[in-house]
Amino acid sequence: MPARLVIWMADIHSKRVRESEKAREKDCVAQKGFQDVHVMIFIGFGFLMTFLQRYGFSSVGFNFLIAAFALQWATLMQGFVHGMHGGKIHVGIESMINADFCTGSVLISFGAVLGKTSPVQLLVMSVIEVTLFAVNEFIVLTVLGAKDAGGSMTIHTFGAYFGLMVARVLYRPNLDKSKHKNCSVYHSDLFAMIGTIYLWMFWPSFNSAVTAHGDDQHRTAMNTYYSLAACTLATYGLSAVVAHDGKLDMVHIQNAALAGGVAVGTAGEMMLTPFGSMIVGFLAGTISVLGFKFLSPILEQKLKIQDTCGVHNLHGMPGVLGAIVGAVTAALATKDVYGDGMADVFPDIQSGDVEASFQGIRQAISLAVTLGIALLGGLITGFILKLPIYGAPPDTICFEDGIYWELPGEEGSHEELTTVRTPDEAEKLNA
Amino acid sequence: MPARLVIWMADIHSKRVRESEKAREKDCVAQKGFQDVHVMIFIGFGFLMTFLQRYGFSSVGFNFLIAAFALQWATLMQGFVHGMHGGKIHVGIESMINADFCTGSVLISFGAVLGKTSPVQLLVMSVIEVTLFAVNEFIVLTVLGAKDAGGSMTIHTFGAYFGLMVARVLYRPNLDKSKHKNCSVYHSDLFAMIGTIYLWMFWPSFNSAVTAHGDDQHRTAMNTYYSLAACTLATYGLSAVVAHDGKLDMVHIQNAALAGGVAVGTAGEMMLTPFGSMIVGFLAGTISVLGFKFLSPILEQKLKIQDTCGVHNLHGMPGVLGAIVGAVTAALATKDVYGDGMADVFPDIQSGDVEASFQGIRQAISLAVTLGIALLGGLITGFILKLPIYGAPPDTICFEDGIYWELPGEEGSHEELTTVRTPDEAEKLNA
Amino acid sequence: MPARLVIWMADIHSKRVRESEKAREKDCVAQKGFQDVHVMIFIGFGFLMTFLQRYGFSSVGFNFLIAAFALQWATLMQGFVHGMHGGKIHVGIESMINADFCTGSVLISFGAVLGKTSPVQLLVMSVIEVTLFAVNEFIVLTVLGAKDAGGSMTIHTFGAYFGLMVARVLYRPNLDKSKHKNCSVYHSDLFAMIGTIYLWMFWPSFNSAVTAHGDDQHRTAMNTYYSLAACTLATYGLSAVVAHDGKLDMVHIQNAALAGGVAVGTAGEMMLTPFGSMIVGFLAGTISVLGFKFLSPILEQKLKIQDTCGVHNLHGMPGVLGAIVGAVTAALATKDVYGDGMADVFPDIQSGDVEASFQGIRQAISLAVTLGIALLGGLITGFILKLPIYGAPPDTICFEDGIYWELPGEEGSHEELTTVRTPDEAEKLNA
Repeated sequence: MPARLVIWMADIHSKRVRESEKAREKDCVAQKGFQDVHVMIFIGFGFLMTFLQRYGFSSVGFNFLIAAFALQWATLMQGFVHGMHGGKIHVGIESMINADFCTGSVLISFGAVLGKTSPVQLLVMSVIEVTLFAVNEFIVLTVLGAKDAGGSMTIHTFGAYFGLMVARVLYRPNLDKSKHKNCSVYHSDLFAMIGTIYLWMFWPSFNSAVTAHGDDQHRTAMNTYYSLAACTLATYGLSAVVAHDGKLDMVHIQNAALAGGVAVGTAGEMMLTPFGSMIVGFLAGTISVLGFKFLSPILEQKLKIQDTCGVHNLHGMPGVLGAIVGAVTAALATKDVYGDGMADVFPDIQSGDVEASFQGIRQAISLAVTLGIALLGGLITGFILKLPIYGAPPDTICFEDGIYWELPGEEGSHEELTTVRTPDEAEKLNA
Repeated sequence: MPARLVIWMADIHSKRVRESEKAREKDCVAQKGFQDVHVMIFIGFGFLMTFLQRYGFSSVGFNFLIAAFALQWATLMQGFVHGMHGGKIHVGIESMINADFCTGSVLISFGAVLGKTSPVQLLVMSVIEVTLFAVNEFIVLTVLGAKDAGGSMTIHTFGAYFGLMVARVLYRPNLDKSKHKNCSVYHSDLFAMIGTIYLWMFWPSFNSAVTAHGDDQHRTAMNTYYSLAACTLATYGLSAVVAHDGKLDMVHIQNAALAGGVAVGTAGEMMLTPFGSMIVGFLAGTISVLGFKFLSPILEQKLKIQDTCGVHNLHGMPGVLGAIVGAVTAALATKDVYGDGMADVFPDIQSGDVEASFQGIRQAISLAVTLGIALLGGLITGFILKLPIYGAPPDTICFEDGIYWELPGEEGSHEELTTVRTPDEAEKLNA
Repeated sequence: MPARLVIWMADIHSKRVRESEKAREKDCVAQKGFQDVHVMIFIGFGFLMTFLQRYGFSSVGFNFLIAAFALQWATLMQGFVHGMHGGKIHVGIESMINADFCTGSVLISFGAVLGKTSPVQLLVMSVIEVTLFAVNEFIVLTVLGAKDAGGSMTIHTFGAYFGLMVARVLYRPNLDKSKHKNCSVYHSDLFAMIGTIYLWMFWPSFNSAVTAHGDDQHRTAMNTYYSLAACTLATYGLSAVVAHDGKLDMVHIQNAALAGGVAVGTAGEMMLTPFGSMIVGFLAGTISVLGFKFLSPILEQKLKIQDTCGVHNLHGMPGVLGAIVGAVTAALATKDVYGDGMADVFPDIQSGDVEASFQGIRQAISLAVTLGIALLGGLITGFILKLPIYGAPPDTICFEDGIYWELPGEEGSHEELTTVRTPDEAEKLNA
């Protein structure tokens, strides 16, 4: 009997050690994941949008403003919808990661309306979008029981189609008056590459930040890594092919090279295999480059959607692709392949509650629900933002920092360089 | 008896596991903390100061030089003053974090004299300031027993008022001869935003880098996070309000948005609560923006303090605010609220050595001591730096890289400036 | 007997805990190491090369392309040569770090031919260099049993001399036709500093990423940290000394300040001591600055090696220095000094298989082998790249993005600003 007691005590000891250890290890890994996602939100998204020649202050500055606001609002909204414990919202690393995810979605929508909205409009959009994001996330992950760790559906598809719908409602027929500013200059493209590279490097952390620790998390990170690598090669190759003289286009490199991360957002934690991930990444890069080249002009001319950053090509189509890949991979899941990992990835299949094929159907329904809420939400939000009370810029002064920022002198102008500006140009700018 | 032996052995086993585990876990977390602080020192401070149009090389280059020097000197000085073990200085992650903190203080002072000092002057200033920092830190933390994990007093208040006093002594009545260079250009402001965003993102790590691991560290990080978020919103709002036509000012965004991190440097690890942190952050952003708008011109004209980066607004006032918030929060500490955490935050109150109210007094005295040493030290240092032997720049060539750096040609000058390109050149290029 | 059983069980418990814990802790640290190295490869190398005024797109863009490709190819090649387990290649954090190391070597070679090669040439070079890297690594680390955790030999020496030999074979006698573009402009130098600072900050992680966890890893990181700090001071001092009027040269700061990390790549994990590391760092900075000032022009004129980034000064000579320091330090290893750590650093000396002096000889032979494979491999690769089928740029359009990228309009050209500068103003600036 004393021996039994001893065994029991030894057991308790080790167990406690293991548990506290697990908690702390989880913590350490989670902190790293949070930090990486945080860098993606503030540096990645912020600088990715600095490509416009005269909208760098607004890109990085409004990104900063929206993110700082949305983080707090998302903590509240996600807490209300699915994080209440005895009437209190628990905050911690996991809630901070989820708030970053929600913020990412808002920043994707920001990309669609970049240069054409006032900060007040953006804040109003954030209020509505964060709320709907939390509702959609609750329906998809909790009610429908779908899996979407990296957010192909809940973050990318939702953010993209929400933003595209807002852009549709806010359509500006005379936007070509600001056309000469809706493009990059040499150094603005280099600033944007800072954003691209940070997003690319930390995407494996993004997709795996809230997966189960251990094997599951590693698999997600590796799948994302291989998908991105293949996507990048596809992007460079195709960018040279579709150009008229074999030259590379910075727009493709900055954006399409990231589509591989979007497209494994759902299936990344599943048994996609490295080779499968590379195929998905290759496909994502391909549709993204083709989208920029052929689809974006059509969207603008036929559907009247002025998508400044091309979020349809980076987040929209690759997000839908990712949702479909996720549904198919889920439907094909077997206990032979997943082994003990099944409990982490598909607890409902493990417990025998659902068949794998039904999990696939759940995933497909979740995509439809996400699209529905995003499009409807964007439509309503668009009409709310159309009210003439937010100080939106006129068609002639879009893509221009000067309307919302005190601008410094021109490059080198104080350095005894004279800035010759025609009077009516200057007038417009200071208007 | 064998069973007791077994219990004892099992206990030993688990204990060792726990201890080594704790050491390693501490290590892992501490490494992350160190890395984040390191990025803040080199990228954050370095690029934050690149906002000047012709002083980018010096900002990031001298920042690099001073930091590389001060790190080593601080390791020695902090070792001499409070890190000796049997006649040897122990180095490790904790000493590296502390050296980074000390370096941060020197870089804050650098901000006050930016553009008006030679590298030799900066190195001499570092030698003195690092030494006084170590002495002040020893008095505040060890002799007086105050708490200041994030350095509202020891780092920010000390660095700011030291630098302001140096700037006062080095007052240049004819600085307006270089006035046209004491401002930003478009791209230099974007480089500065890289510094701002990195400082903002990693500030929670800064404030929590040397707190007790576990709950204490989490609380500190969360308090800092919420303070920064609220501060950012306050900064944007107030920046638009104080401007003459509702436009945002980059100077405010780059600096005041960070004041929330400074202001919870002392109280961050205390039971400030998320809501309390947000109030502090809101206040910090407010006084910082108002400082830039109304106080800085007065400081320059009446007190003859030419504060290039406005460190009084970002580090000085928010640092003092943080010290006061810390003193009040400490004085209000009760065992009911802190529970077991009291041992981590206020070991002297836990052990019954002091009352909470007395801890508050200690904190207040520490602020006074810090201000005293900083101002006196800055005064003496200023006079030492005034000796005409360091190659300081003349009033006409301040804020100018050209005096210390071999400068490359102008933007595009080699590219046949103003882009005059002969037709066949252009043809070749497009071939 | 029950008690024995209990002991045994308690032992098993703790053992499992310890093992799983060790694995996880290793994991957590390894992940941090991987992330840091990853940032160095994509941001560090990518932006370090953006110093050229009209080659920023290619520098960061081709760096991205080559790295994304080489990572995958290196995983395969390193797997084939020394990572097969039962016919399968195991992938994981360690293989990802090793692939990053191999990629680093390719990017060093890229630095030697920067601006003079087409993307196709670079991809062909990557295919060959990655393969030879894996072979050389296998010979040096496994066959010869040398130690080279930070890759002074296998990464830096190999990459530099491989690239220099390629540059020699691809010698362009008429390159001075593009001479006016082979230099920096103000903002391109600031972009390059982003690369420099990131490389500098994370180099301790680079050198210690694959060392044994615990003491060994800490020692490596600390040695690298002190070497870099001393190297930076040496670089600033010497840069001012060798300049004609005491001005600092950005080329030295951007490159030579990093030589201290290269030079402790082999000896960093050995008992080099902080003071020893600082001497090595000081030497590395010195030879690197002197190399840029005096040796590079000779290499170009006499040996016909056009080394665009000066990789001979940053990676070549410091790499050889690091190999020699490693050989000497290894030869001097005694059990008195290393204690239990001997098993981690020199397992063969610990087990009595070899004498310390013989380990030194192994290290020296490894340097010779590395140089041989690099030079021969570079020679062959150079001739393969000389085939006129890769679309290499003509001599007149080297260092020019326009040949491979669709370029945006000029800075400010859309803003219709004209830059007029009076002659005496320009004079003042260049004074």
